[in-house]
Amino acid sequence: MGWQPVEAAGDPGSGKSRSNERLEEMRALLDDALETFLSDELRGLEPDVADAVRYAVLSPGKRIRPLLLMASYEATAGVDPRIAPLALSVELVHAYSLVHDDLPCMDDDVLRRGRPTVHVRFGTPVAVLAGAALMPLAVRAILRGASLLELKAATVDRLVAMLARASGASGMVGGQLLDLRAEGRAISGDDLEEIHSGKTARLIAASTVMGGIAAGASQPTLEALHRFGMDLGLAFQAVDDILDLRGTSGELGKESGRDRALGKATYPALFGLEETEKISRAFANAAIAELELLERPEGLTAIASYVIERTH
Amino acid sequence: MGWQPVEAAGDPGSGKSRSNERLEEMRALLDDALETFLSDELRGLEPDVADAVRYAVLSPGKRIRPLLLMASYEATAGVDPRIAPLALSVELVHAYSLVHDDLPCMDDDVLRRGRPTVHVRFGTPVAVLAGAALMPLAVRAILRGASLLELKAATVDRLVAMLARASGASGMVGGQLLDLRAEGRAISGDDLEEIHSGKTARLIAASTVMGGIAAGASQPTLEALHRFGMDLGLAFQAVDDILDLRGTSGELGKESGRDRALGKATYPALFGLEETEKISRAFANAAIAELELLERPEGLTAIASYVIERTH
Repeated sequence: MGWQPVEAAGDPGSGKSRSNERLEEMRALLDDALETFLSDELRGLEPDVADAVRYAVLSPGKRIRPLLLMASYEATAGVDPRIAPLALSVELVHAYSLVHDDLPCMDDDVLRRGRPTVHVRFGTPVAVLAGAALMPLAVRAILRGASLLELKAATVDRLVAMLARASGASGMVGGQLLDLRAEGRAISGDDLEEIHSGKTARLIAASTVMGGIAAGASQPTLEALHRFGMDLGLAFQAVDDILDLRGTSGELGKESGRDRALGKATYPALFGLEETEKISRAFANAAIAELELLERPEGLTAIASYVIERTH
Repeated sequence: MGWQPVEAAGDPGSGKSRSNERLEEMRALLDDALETFLSDELRGLEPDVADAVRYAVLSPGKRIRPLLLMASYEATAGVDPRIAPLALSVELVHAYSLVHDDLPCMDDDVLRRGRPTVHVRFGTPVAVLAGAALMPLAVRAILRGASLLELKAATVDRLVAMLARASGASGMVGGQLLDLRAEGRAISGDDLEEIHSGKTARLIAASTVMGGIAAGASQPTLEALHRFGMDLGLAFQAVDDILDLRGTSGELGKESGRDRALGKATYPALFGLEETEKISRAFANAAIAELELLERPEGLTAIASYVIERTH
């Protein structure tokens, strides 16, 4: 357990590969925690909704948001596997946004993470209900995770408030609407940043800040974690848009070229691929520069590198 | 302010009319609190989602759930208008379930509370997003209401946990799925009670119990409030099904006869109208019998009477 230096002197390759190993360890911890949580929470329910929720959540995702929550916690409090159940909360909200985004009345996608989307597999009514079940489950993940970490009730309130704000009309939902509204329209770079902030960066920043809150981080640290999360979220979205254009469906696990087909507002559409790569690196570097304050930034640095260098 | 005896000796009519006046006062208090809450929470948002959320929530509803939360609070703690903002939380969850229920991929309803449904008015994508925004808003209503009442953080956690459980896959969402699944199929009275428990009674029971928790009620009182809420919820659903068959669209504010058109599982479909009226009264009487323990049951008794005697 624990992080190796990301770039060991004279041997950058092996430092990076140790970082990647550690990310895989953390992913395995999260997947175990997800299995346990869903087994407990979905027990005795209607098989259809339970299956659809499991299908939506347990698909082979990158788990960027819960990884960031865990790494942000570790940056202040050190390694502690008990953080995993709390980290599920942000993955559950993310899964819910994907189920809703893919619906026929929204982006109408048929492929996600290499498999048929939830509504294709289970029908639209069950997909709507599975989506609706995920938000209450996210709240329950906070409560269970907080109890495991023996957090104070006031800390739990802050975590719940943060997740509600990031998920709602002023966060993710608002960003999704701006995204739909911008389809086929000419928009500015500032407009695009606003869309991406809402639909992607705010939940990512909520993940990093929630990790800090759970760890009892100071206010300046929480503010740095927030700025890190917002910048990394914007970098993440720019890379996503590049991959959508460049990738094949097999690599991406979802249909490639969907953004262009839907007339989505993206950085590549606005500035071209080369400029978008520069933008994504600039956001990622700005993000990493925020980590100076932290005692143990290695995890967050490794995730930031992964976000920029990923190929799917 | 305050309750008159429901049936003043020798003058039953005027006792009832005073109860109804008090219900109207409480509704006015709730509607004011809703206006204030939404003005604060939706400020600066995309007009479309904000308008759709306002439209969904501010439509002329009966406000049964928040009235029950307020009356349950009063039953232990006495009259206090500061309970209204907390009570909004259960109305927001209810509004969200209506938006989703009415969607084209669900019950496909075009009329609700006398007006076009949210997706008819704003389009399906905005309706899905407005629905998604309502659950986080409900959590925020708890946090704001609790702060106004200066509740302890541990009490806030209990309220959030209760709402999450009642809204999720083991509560409302589960009931909605059973309801969809039962369309056009023959089912038993027990199955029907399970459907109604999930889709209607659990949120109503959460409303009464949350009022008790906020008031600091004892465990036996909370248990009585839970049983009251479950029984009243089943009575409420039976009356709703009777009204759907008997009413005209103008009276109901929604299309009448939809249950039969959709092949919905209802008490009238299973047992006939006359028997269903007996069932609804039996549930309501069982509910009222649970109120013995309470110091000030008048509000809850008045709401129970209203539920049984309402005509729309």
